[in-house]
Amino acid sequence: MTEAERGQAPAIILVRPQMGENIGMAARAMANFGLSDLRLVSPRDGWGAGAPVMQAALDAAVGASAIVAQAGVYSTVEAASGDLHRLYATTARARGQAKVVFSAEEAVADARQLSLVRGRAGVLFGPERTGLDNNEVALADAIISYPVDPAHPSLNLAQAVSLFAYVWRTAEVGSAAPFALEPLTPPATRDMFFAFFADLDQALEAGNYFIPDGKRAVMSRNLHNIFHRLELSEADIRTLRGVVVALSRGRVRRAKG
Amino acid sequence: MTEAERGQAPAIILVRPQMGENIGMAARAMANFGLSDLRLVSPRDGWGAGAPVMQAALDAAVGASAIVAQAGVYSTVEAASGDLHRLYATTARARGQAKVVFSAEEAVADARQLSLVRGRAGVLFGPERTGLDNNEVALADAIISYPVDPAHPSLNLAQAVSLFAYVWRTAEVGSAAPFALEPLTPPATRDMFFAFFADLDQALEAGNYFIPDGKRAVMSRNLHNIFHRLELSEADIRTLRGVVVALSRGRVRRAKG
Repeated sequence: MTEAERGQAPAIILVRPQMGENIGMAARAMANFGLSDLRLVSPRDGWGAGAPVMQAALDAAVGASAIVAQAGVYSTVEAASGDLHRLYATTARARGQAKVVFSAEEAVADARQLSLVRGRAGVLFGPERTGLDNNEVALADAIISYPVDPAHPSLNLAQAVSLFAYVWRTAEVGSAAPFALEPLTPPATRDMFFAFFADLDQALEAGNYFIPDGKRAVMSRNLHNIFHRLELSEADIRTLRGVVVALSRGRVRRAKG
Repeated sequence: MTEAERGQAPAIILVRPQMGENIGMAARAMANFGLSDLRLVSPRDGWGAGAPVMQAALDAAVGASAIVAQAGVYSTVEAASGDLHRLYATTARARGQAKVVFSAEEAVADARQLSLVRGRAGVLFGPERTGLDNNEVALADAIISYPVDPAHPSLNLAQAVSLFAYVWRTAEVGSAAPFALEPLTPPATRDMFFAFFADLDQALEAGNYFIPDGKRAVMSRNLHNIFHRLELSEADIRTLRGVVVALSRGRVRRAKG
C-alpha cells in the first residue's frame, strides 16, 4: 500500500520551533511512521542552506533528511495551513476556548474520515518552551491532547510528533510489527512429541524418578504438560532429545566411576 | 488512582545507552506517562555524580530529574532484570529467534495480565547505533516491535521509550486528555435559538433577503440549520445577536447617507 493509496496523510506543522535537533527528530519520527509533509512556521533561528539550525535538523533526521530538506517554510500559521481542510492544535493544557478536545486516536479517526472526501488535515505543534499561543490555538478546528500525568504534562516536541505519527500509522496499517514470529523449523508434530516423551520417561524410569509407583501416571502427565505449553518446533524437540541423552549418559558414567 | 493502585508498572531498561540526552529524554517521557522505574545497563560513558553523561541526562530530563537520579545501574541485563517476572526486548528487525513478536499494545496487555498475579515486567531497549545484540534478545520472553515503515525502521531511543510509555498509559487511564471541552458559558437553550432566529429573519426581511417570496421557508430553514450545527453556547448566541444588530445598523446608515 503506497502513501497515496492510504489516503491523505496529515501535514505536521511546527510553529516557531527553537531547536534544529527537535525539527530533525520530528522528521525522523515522521519517516518511521509513513508521514512526509513537514511545514515550519517562523523557525526561531532562521532556515535555509547554510543556517546552523537547518544543519542540526539534517543531522538529527538520520535517514529522513529529505523530509527536512523539503520542508515548507512559512511566516504564519495561516500561510502554512491555507491549502488544508482541517487543523488540529496540540496542547498540554486547557485553554479556556470553547473547542473540542480530541485524543490522538479520535483526531486520527476524524482525519481519516475527512480523507474519504479528499480532505487533508494538519496538526500544529507549538514551540518547545511555551507551546502554541492562544491565537494559534484559535485557528484550529479542535485540540489534540495526550493523557499525560498532570504532574508532568510537558512533552518533548519531537516525541509529541512521534506519538501522533504512531497513532496515525497504527490506524492505517495496524499495530503489528512488519515481521512476525519465524521459527527456524516447522512446529513439531504430535508424533515427535510422543517419541520425545517415550525417551524421556524411559530415561527417568532408569533414574528412579517415578516414586512412589502409584504416582507414575500423574507425574508423567504433569511433566508432559510443561512441554506442551512450549509450542515446540521440530528443532526444539531434537534439542531436548539430545539433552535427555546427554543427562542419561552423565548418570551412567557417574554410576560406573 | 495512584501508581500502586494501577498495579505493577513495567521497568524501563536501557542497555548500554550511549547519549545522556537520550537517557534524560527517556526519563522525561516516562514521567509524562506515569512510569518511574528506570534501569541502566553499562552506560557507555559511565555514570554517577560528576559524570558528564549523567549531567546531560539530568538536563534533558527537565521535570523528571528524580527518575534519572534514582535510576539503578547494572553491569548486565541479567542483573538488571533479576527481580522481574517477564522481559520484553524491543527490536526493529526480525532476529531469526523463535520468539513471539508483540505489538506494543499486545505486550502491554500481557504485562497488565501479569500484574494481576503481582508479576512485574521489564522492557529492554538497546544502544542507539546497534540495538540489542542477539544474546540480549535471547534473554527476553518476547519481542516488541513497532509498525514502522520498513524503509525507515530506526527509532530514536527516547522516542521508542515514549511510545511504549504512551501505550501503557492509554491502557491504564484511556487516551482522553486530562481536561475536556469547557465552554465558557452553558449551551444555549432552544428559546435563545428561537429568539436569535426571529431577530435574524426580521433583519434579513428588511434587507430583502427572502427573494423570491415562495422560497422564504426553505431559505430560512437552510440558514437556521447552519447555526444548529454549531452547538452554540449562551455567550455565542449573544455574540451573534450583536453581529446582526451591527450589520443592520450599518445598512440603515448606508441607506441614510
